[in-house]
Amino acid sequence: MSGPSTKGFSYSLLAKSGAARAGILTTPHGDVPTPTFMPVGTQGSVKTLNPAEVSATGARIVLGNTYHLWLRPGPEVVAELGGLHRFTHWPHAMLTDSGGFQAFSLAERRKTSEDGFVFRSHLDGSKKELSPEIAMKVQGQIGADIAMQLDICPPGDAPQKEVEEACARTTRWAKRCLAAKREDQALFGIVQGGTNPALRRAHAEELSAMPFDGIALGGFSVGEPIEKMHELLEEIGPTLDQERPHYLMGVGTPYDLIRAIGTGIDMFDCVLPTRNARNGQALTRTGKVVIKQARYKTDPSPLDPTCSCPTCAEGYSRAYLRHLYLAGEILVLRLMTAHNLHLYGTLVAEAREAILADRYAEFARQWLDGLKGDDAKSA
Amino acid sequence: MSGPSTKGFSYSLLAKSGAARAGILTTPHGDVPTPTFMPVGTQGSVKTLNPAEVSATGARIVLGNTYHLWLRPGPEVVAELGGLHRFTHWPHAMLTDSGGFQAFSLAERRKTSEDGFVFRSHLDGSKKELSPEIAMKVQGQIGADIAMQLDICPPGDAPQKEVEEACARTTRWAKRCLAAKREDQALFGIVQGGTNPALRRAHAEELSAMPFDGIALGGFSVGEPIEKMHELLEEIGPTLDQERPHYLMGVGTPYDLIRAIGTGIDMFDCVLPTRNARNGQALTRTGKVVIKQARYKTDPSPLDPTCSCPTCAEGYSRAYLRHLYLAGEILVLRLMTAHNLHLYGTLVAEAREAILADRYAEFARQWLDGLKGDDAKSA
Repeated sequence: MSGPSTKGFSYSLLAKSGAARAGILTTPHGDVPTPTFMPVGTQGSVKTLNPAEVSATGARIVLGNTYHLWLRPGPEVVAELGGLHRFTHWPHAMLTDSGGFQAFSLAERRKTSEDGFVFRSHLDGSKKELSPEIAMKVQGQIGADIAMQLDICPPGDAPQKEVEEACARTTRWAKRCLAAKREDQALFGIVQGGTNPALRRAHAEELSAMPFDGIALGGFSVGEPIEKMHELLEEIGPTLDQERPHYLMGVGTPYDLIRAIGTGIDMFDCVLPTRNARNGQALTRTGKVVIKQARYKTDPSPLDPTCSCPTCAEGYSRAYLRHLYLAGEILVLRLMTAHNLHLYGTLVAEAREAILADRYAEFARQWLDGLKGDDAKSA
Repeated sequence: MSGPSTKGFSYSLLAKSGAARAGILTTPHGDVPTPTFMPVGTQGSVKTLNPAEVSATGARIVLGNTYHLWLRPGPEVVAELGGLHRFTHWPHAMLTDSGGFQAFSLAERRKTSEDGFVFRSHLDGSKKELSPEIAMKVQGQIGADIAMQLDICPPGDAPQKEVEEACARTTRWAKRCLAAKREDQALFGIVQGGTNPALRRAHAEELSAMPFDGIALGGFSVGEPIEKMHELLEEIGPTLDQERPHYLMGVGTPYDLIRAIGTGIDMFDCVLPTRNARNGQALTRTGKVVIKQARYKTDPSPLDPTCSCPTCAEGYSRAYLRHLYLAGEILVLRLMTAHNLHLYGTLVAEAREAILADRYAEFARQWLDGLKGDDAKSA
């Protein structure tokens, strides 16, 4: 097994509490305490917020989407402006995905072969090719601290044979990505294998034998029952290489984070807190607040009286937020987004403290007990 | 002639330079240095910005639209939440219009009589009546520092007889509004008269004989040639009562402000800087930057290298702003709005300094010389 070697990038495991891990991810753009949640900045912006506001939620790493930035403004433009950090004014760490997942889900007339994807841009219909080498080149131009390998992500209900082939091709692409990566950019491998524990374990071992800087678990949140994911994480999470960070891609709810951290996951990304905010749904320790509801019409209390986010701390009332939401005012999208991301930032920060104090199980039970109704499940 | 008497409200004229005036408007929510520009917060939010950001543009008074707040969330809701200041977290002064202009321009099936307007809400079709007394009651519930009288605002091409009748009815409504106003809320009268200098002068004298806290000029920006307005302001502006603030409603471009301040106008409001920002148009001392243009694709410079607004000072590039705009990202609307309002804040602050130093004519010439092309005219 060969370990990672990217200059300026390292992972230190500081403490464990059960399988849960507290660590530090060192990057050229600063340290990231783990576990960590990465807000999604699809097109070079965490929707509605400026970088200072994102940072104030506790986030020290954000995710950019290669597919979107590739199609617009184009990696040459981002590179000419000094890379995604300078382009967007985000001072902390960044990770980009490979573009494969969006080429799969958003693009038109997609064809897959051993060499990668050929697809049509969903913006202008232009033909694009995404091979492992192109994924590395484009991510190199965008210039995040961490790049992701190109992988094959089968749907949640794919037959075993398709899942096995996805693992095999993902391994072949892993080698090609490692060969093509920028020396100064970290690269994570992506474990596939659906909900089959044996396949997952075998694939994780294959990828861990390569000099990746981190190990990601892909192929979740793609239609499978979410409890299946958690069962599998309990089996697989603790067996992942302890020397490297573990990233669960595209997950999830507060419930999902609490449970997955308990299995040794260090990194998460998800559009849920930002997207739900824009849909008028605030997340709190005790569940959701759907701000358009009539019961908030004259409610003078903040979204969550126990929350220290700017929206709650400055005392914006539910009544005002509801009014802004119904009136279509942009300000509410900011206020709700800052609140939701602050909850995620608080969750991972408190989880980390609990791990360092070796009381993660107790912490997790308390959080999960606090969530009401649907939010107490992974809905 | 009886002067104004609202408690907590006063105007002090500090200096003149030609007809241009520098003063201070004292309100229960702080002093407003004049000349001043009031950003428009139609529905209880200056679109895209939070109160701290609006304040950072130099604004010390904002305008709320009674028509919109009346229909949603309703004046009872605003009152129950402690009034518009507490509801929206704006700490400085506020003014509301009467609702008449929007009842005229936005509402459906409007009927006008001596008693006011009867119309249907553009939101839900419900029947509403807006009389001078109701305009005062609703504005009293909303609770801004300054209310406006209900007036009749004929279109820019209205025949003289219609304009005369509008003046007469506006005068009758002025008396009813004064009788119905809250004791602790300032009230401004609205001078009509179209582009007829004699009518304007006569109507201004009529209203100045009443105990209004300020004199507004309405009925501009309603379709008349803008140079007609400036000619008329040059004639009328200097003749307005020097003891009271002069408010030019719904105006205008930087060019318009520079010229109108020169005739003795103290207060302005206009959606132009905020609306144009959301349409991708940045205003600068040298004219407009239309951010979607291809020439900015890789432009690393800020909107205006001489500007000290957060957007320019933090170095957001035109290339990034263009990308965000084309990608439909909300962040760009904030960044452009803050920039445009900062220009207006800077313009009135510099105008005030120039007046205090008795060099307004020179200042105005320099600003107007700096504007290029269409921006050098009042387009």
